[in-house]
Amino acid sequence: MSEHEFASLHVPGKPLVLPNVWDVAGARALVAAGFRAVGTTSLGVAASHGLPDGEDATLDETLRLVSRLATLPVLVTADIERGSVAAAVAAAEAGAVGVNVEDAFGDAAVHASLIRDIKRAVPGLFVNARTDTHWLRVGDVGEAVRRMRMYRDAGADGVFVPGVREPGDIARLVAAADVPLNVLAQPGGLTVAELGELGVARISLGSLLFRAALAALVETAMAVRLDNHVRTDLPTYQEVNG
Amino acid sequence: MSEHEFASLHVPGKPLVLPNVWDVAGARALVAAGFRAVGTTSLGVAASHGLPDGEDATLDETLRLVSRLATLPVLVTADIERGSVAAAVAAAEAGAVGVNVEDAFGDAAVHASLIRDIKRAVPGLFVNARTDTHWLRVGDVGEAVRRMRMYRDAGADGVFVPGVREPGDIARLVAAADVPLNVLAQPGGLTVAELGELGVARISLGSLLFRAALAALVETAMAVRLDNHVRTDLPTYQEVNG
Repeated sequence: MSEHEFASLHVPGKPLVLPNVWDVAGARALVAAGFRAVGTTSLGVAASHGLPDGEDATLDETLRLVSRLATLPVLVTADIERGSVAAAVAAAEAGAVGVNVEDAFGDAAVHASLIRDIKRAVPGLFVNARTDTHWLRVGDVGEAVRRMRMYRDAGADGVFVPGVREPGDIARLVAAADVPLNVLAQPGGLTVAELGELGVARISLGSLLFRAALAALVETAMAVRLDNHVRTDLPTYQEVNG
Repeated sequence: MSEHEFASLHVPGKPLVLPNVWDVAGARALVAAGFRAVGTTSLGVAASHGLPDGEDATLDETLRLVSRLATLPVLVTADIERGSVAAAVAAAEAGAVGVNVEDAFGDAAVHASLIRDIKRAVPGLFVNARTDTHWLRVGDVGEAVRRMRMYRDAGADGVFVPGVREPGDIARLVAAADVPLNVLAQPGGLTVAELGELGVARISLGSLLFRAALAALVETAMAVRLDNHVRTDLPTYQEVNG
């Protein structure tokens, strides 16, 4: 079962580095680079289609993307933002082996209840329960631990605390989690090796690749316009088309 | 009229640098960087949706993209591959001020006839007639000139010879064209200034930005996985979402 394969990639101490994609080309390139699993990024999906992120406006495009990614030799987990049972079921039907559902620092009991309902509806789906204590800078580690435990008790397969940076905080979360802890990669912050030593099981890249791609796009256009150097070692047309 | 504004950007000697995009986020970023017009890239649209390029499979996605780009303060020209009257009409209705139609080195008379029919159906649309003599490496400058003249006589507003690189060839094409000549930017090749001196009126970036973005995506993912340096001067989440 691919869901089991995906769960087995979550090894505390030897974290799964999970790149997040917003289109098929990015996923194909990552597969070629050796990645066995990808997530979707709601920011990338939103921005690439001119939609707002964080307002549950991306679901249709995310499902469309998942169904296309499901044709590739890669495990896919879908960012369905706050989520719903219907969205989780649709993601699973589109081929996702997991979903992220975020609490947006709303009522934790309501979010726990949603997680329970999703696990009841699609038991095999890896439900990664995100709490936004640190992402929204509204809660401390104690609050994150309280929420993580509620989500774990509701059946979450993993917990995700994007935005947490301090080694002491991460160690506390790992100790309290009982399920794989997922954090967000922070350029300039802790390395994969350091996060592994703290017991992290999954490192998501979030919108990082999308923002890196966007920067490259603009910088390359400006370089052409200004007659600056443009690198000539890019993938070729033929390599991309096929 | 925005079609006239787009036509007026084609100045022989002071070429329009036209970046090609495949999603809304890229176009928004280019508008912010000061570009007044963008094209779509059929390779980017194809690959980002997991479709083949060059087989007229991208039209639905291209039209969907154009309708979203039309909400931005930017002039949009659509790559409709080989094209059809229906496709050109649909692109115009979606908000495009221009289209590219490529001959794929097929029958030049048939292509000229298509151009005539498109101009009859949508007179205001800037029709950029592409000949694939050099792109497919199947024809010389003499053949390109012959085709360009047929397309111009059919009403084409501009002609596009992607893949031409030699200054002498470009000068010959400019002299023979009578309408704005469009070439493809070649990293490591002639600069914008040099192409301007040769009389070029438009420089398309084709799939360059798409390939640069894809390279940045993979390189950033690998850098995180290998604990190499990841740049920290990327656009922020907040800058991208909005």
